[in-house]
Amino acid sequence: MPLARIDVPHHTSRAVLEAISDTVYEAMLTVAGVPAHDKFQVISRHAPDELVYPSNGYLGVHYSANIVFIQVTWNAGRTTAVKRAFYRAVADGIHVATGMRTEDVIISLVDVQPENWSLGTGAMPYGPA
Amino acid sequence: MPLARIDVPHHTSRAVLEAISDTVYEAMLTVAGVPAHDKFQVISRHAPDELVYPSNGYLGVHYSANIVFIQVTWNAGRTTAVKRAFYRAVADGIHVATGMRTEDVIISLVDVQPENWSLGTGAMPYGPA
Amino acid sequence: MPLARIDVPHHTSRAVLEAISDTVYEAMLTVAGVPAHDKFQVISRHAPDELVYPSNGYLGVHYSANIVFIQVTWNAGRTTAVKRAFYRAVADGIHVATGMRTEDVIISLVDVQPENWSLGTGAMPYGPA
Repeated sequence: MPLARIDVPHHTSRAVLEAISDTVYEAMLTVAGVPAHDKFQVISRHAPDELVYPSNGYLGVHYSANIVFIQVTWNAGRTTAVKRAFYRAVADGIHVATGMRTEDVIISLVDVQPENWSLGTGAMPYGPA
Repeated sequence: MPLARIDVPHHTSRAVLEAISDTVYEAMLTVAGVPAHDKFQVISRHAPDELVYPSNGYLGVHYSANIVFIQVTWNAGRTTAVKRAFYRAVADGIHVATGMRTEDVIISLVDVQPENWSLGTGAMPYGPA
Repeated sequence: MPLARIDVPHHTSRAVLEAISDTVYEAMLTVAGVPAHDKFQVISRHAPDELVYPSNGYLGVHYSANIVFIQVTWNAGRTTAVKRAFYRAVADGIHVATGMRTEDVIISLVDVQPENWSLGTGAMPYGPA
């Protein structure tokens, strides 16, 4: 059910991209209660002028041209504590797996209702019977 | 008002892409009460490693490299029955029009408020007067 | 905190793209209470058949192949008046800066909760302490 949009610079290697993808999925499993195999992601590669971040930083955080944007649409109901743990797991996990700076990991969540998904065959897997 | 993001593999033919685009729009008209001509879509073509799905399937559904992701942002208020009918119309419609497997049609909905749109000229067409 | 997805035609010049990007950011600052330096955007360039709009127009507005889609995810709580002023500032600002028709500026807003962001380092900057 989560759909993750992952936007990365063109220069991101295949290995790094795969590590980012896997880390986002693993963090969903381990801290956000997402079921195994629920891995749906749309990745886009971007030219340098297509990923825009504040050149002087924001809230004391400074960004680089390696920035990645991860926007997750998933079902509402997760607590603030779970969301906090998810951010930590994604940023730290990407750093450990790839060496990327945690500063360059931007995460945005969009909460939706369970009936808002069809994951193939035209069915509504999470809706009322 | 609905904005549909449609993400497809690079190998999707122009004819298939057009059929997907038209089917999504037609399903909005026929089952979801969307007005005629309200057809706004952002399509992106992707390399094979950019559309990620569970290789062992999920909830008994198995996916292929022909997978398409359709994420629709539209106004809140549609019933579960309407959403269910929309999924059916999109998945079956794409299958009939293109021969694609219904298993490869992923749909995600994001509900927003009527005042959340400007469809040209800087106006707010659905907001209060 | 706002994340703006900006989808433009491939033929958009660098100068025009930069003007669109800056105008969206400036409108956030001046009419929507967004803090300085809070500028996060994901831009995608598209082939002509990837940006779909109603060929006969919609609600009396007619579109061209120069159409741009701007989808902003930001924190809920902004009033209808603020959203209305934001649309006006973005559409008029893009017209003044680039000569583009205001008819070709499509804006979609997605409201989320303050805890739905991590803007680097794995922290949750807007959540409860």
